[in-house]
Amino acid sequence: MDIHDIDTVLYDRAGDALVIIDQTLLPGEVRLLSLTDRDSIYEAIRSLRVRGAPAIGAAAAVGLAVLASRRAPASFEELREGVKEDSAFLASARPTAVNLFWALARMEKVLDRGYGSAEEAVESLRREAEAIIAEDIETCRRIGENGLALLRDGMGVLTHCNAGKLATVRYGTATAPMYLALERGMKLRIYADETRPLLQGARLTAYELSAAGADVTLQCDDMAASAMAEGLIDIVITGADRIAANGDAANKIGTLGLAVLAKHYGIPFYIAAPFSTIDLSTPDGSAIVVEQRDGSEVTDLWYARRMAPEGIKVRNPAFDVTDHSLITGIITEKGIARPDYKASLRTLSEE
Amino acid sequence: MDIHDIDTVLYDRAGDALVIIDQTLLPGEVRLLSLTDRDSIYEAIRSLRVRGAPAIGAAAAVGLAVLASRRAPASFEELREGVKEDSAFLASARPTAVNLFWALARMEKVLDRGYGSAEEAVESLRREAEAIIAEDIETCRRIGENGLALLRDGMGVLTHCNAGKLATVRYGTATAPMYLALERGMKLRIYADETRPLLQGARLTAYELSAAGADVTLQCDDMAASAMAEGLIDIVITGADRIAANGDAANKIGTLGLAVLAKHYGIPFYIAAPFSTIDLSTPDGSAIVVEQRDGSEVTDLWYARRMAPEGIKVRNPAFDVTDHSLITGIITEKGIARPDYKASLRTLSEE
Repeated sequence: MDIHDIDTVLYDRAGDALVIIDQTLLPGEVRLLSLTDRDSIYEAIRSLRVRGAPAIGAAAAVGLAVLASRRAPASFEELREGVKEDSAFLASARPTAVNLFWALARMEKVLDRGYGSAEEAVESLRREAEAIIAEDIETCRRIGENGLALLRDGMGVLTHCNAGKLATVRYGTATAPMYLALERGMKLRIYADETRPLLQGARLTAYELSAAGADVTLQCDDMAASAMAEGLIDIVITGADRIAANGDAANKIGTLGLAVLAKHYGIPFYIAAPFSTIDLSTPDGSAIVVEQRDGSEVTDLWYARRMAPEGIKVRNPAFDVTDHSLITGIITEKGIARPDYKASLRTLSEE
Repeated sequence: MDIHDIDTVLYDRAGDALVIIDQTLLPGEVRLLSLTDRDSIYEAIRSLRVRGAPAIGAAAAVGLAVLASRRAPASFEELREGVKEDSAFLASARPTAVNLFWALARMEKVLDRGYGSAEEAVESLRREAEAIIAEDIETCRRIGENGLALLRDGMGVLTHCNAGKLATVRYGTATAPMYLALERGMKLRIYADETRPLLQGARLTAYELSAAGADVTLQCDDMAASAMAEGLIDIVITGADRIAANGDAANKIGTLGLAVLAKHYGIPFYIAAPFSTIDLSTPDGSAIVVEQRDGSEVTDLWYARRMAPEGIKVRNPAFDVTDHSLITGIITEKGIARPDYKASLRTLSEE
């Protein structure tokens, strides 16, 4: 099965189940999980079987509807109590996932309308979960259409981490313009940074884009500058986790470096994100607290299996060349050479 | 045993052997190899048991002297033929290692002087190998002294890859100023990029500096920009593989990106290298051909064991914040926000 045959998060009405792609098995295996009980839904969110802010929100919403339906409560009040309990339980699966809380709160709010019967209320929950899914698809499609205007045939597009289909229900955010370009037959050369330490670029982005038939090349994060210097990159598009009112954007570590590099090389750098990511109450980036994660992610490789899709193109230059204009000095055994290097190196070499 | 108790490459006169630290076992184990036959010396160079341009050159020189001595030839002419043969064989171990060819050529040239006996010639070869080792130590020490003038107590120093003691006989190049600073009781905060794909920064640089008692913090390559933005880095020092006449410097992939980032943040960026690295006959960097290595280095982790020394400090921020001044546009479902973002985001949000 191809991951593009199915949405990342699905409400299976016939089976009354939350269906997700188990992302912990990617890129090695595409396995669908059909989840119907509270513990397995909780575990799927906690263990990153479903990940990416919009996808987590959608999965939690569908999960809550499935659990409500399967409780088969006698009264609306009994249902309401059960939903509250399930919601609090699911919310504890990822304590910092804003979209998780947002989706669960939105589902609970449905019940504020009041219902004559439990079945009527359950049906409203089902529809709300389906609305959340539909809205996510529509939002990403629109991001794709807006971003598509920036792309031209033959362009080199660089992205970082996974702001792709696998982080949303369909299309992704940063990848949405790329998928729409593909649909329209536009040829892009896409470059995916592997994104250390957790390698989402290698495992997920390179995987999902190549599965869709895109021309995608994987590279290590420290190879982005040389790709730009060689003229391979025409535009950078990444996602964002949170955007402040002044436009400062928090995203996966490494995004900032790409933005600085892009500026240096005169390459446009775009963030693609739904409006729900924009926090107008945060004045600027200094108010955004950055999560510090465990050092073992860096020192111990948790992903000892092959970590990129089979057959993926790879860019692996051993060296890059640093322009002399970027070098403050060259420390040698004869002294420190300074610009103008031609004169300085010659003088030192004669000493 | 501590790697700082011993030089990276050693001529053991008593045992008539080339002694090296087996770098393929680092950082897990410090094991010395005492090599006395041609195949094991060849294999040690080929399999990167000894690596780093100056260390490879020194090892080849010592190896050639050991092999000459052990041949116990009857005449000078017989010795000369044997040395030529050994030299050609060792040169094929790393076909692109300039220092390997340089050291072997220098050793062969010793025999041009002509000798009355084989034993006299062998002793000259031994002394030449020892001279190469002594010169490497002296060159690195001087690089250290020249670079030390750039360092102050409390500075944050960032380096990339391994231009350290393990790449030379002693001191290293980029690390030489750091080791001399340590010897003088200066306190530095050293940051080591892990250096994908082969992780020389994690496995070797973080290891050798922490073994020397330095305050060293390991980070992924895509974390360098945020360290600079946070004010943690006061100076960047890397090594170089080849420097053109105009100062353009080829070094491990990722160096260029650090130089661009350093310029953006107003941080001095220095290359530390022996004069033998400077190629005045290469006018600029465009004439330097960059080796493209196998993609499996990126897609398959060859180092599935723990890849950093025990107890190493790690910097592992999950996100960074990209300043709005670096962002060309924010692609949303409502349209593309452009600077001034405050106004643009507000306008879009009201649509």
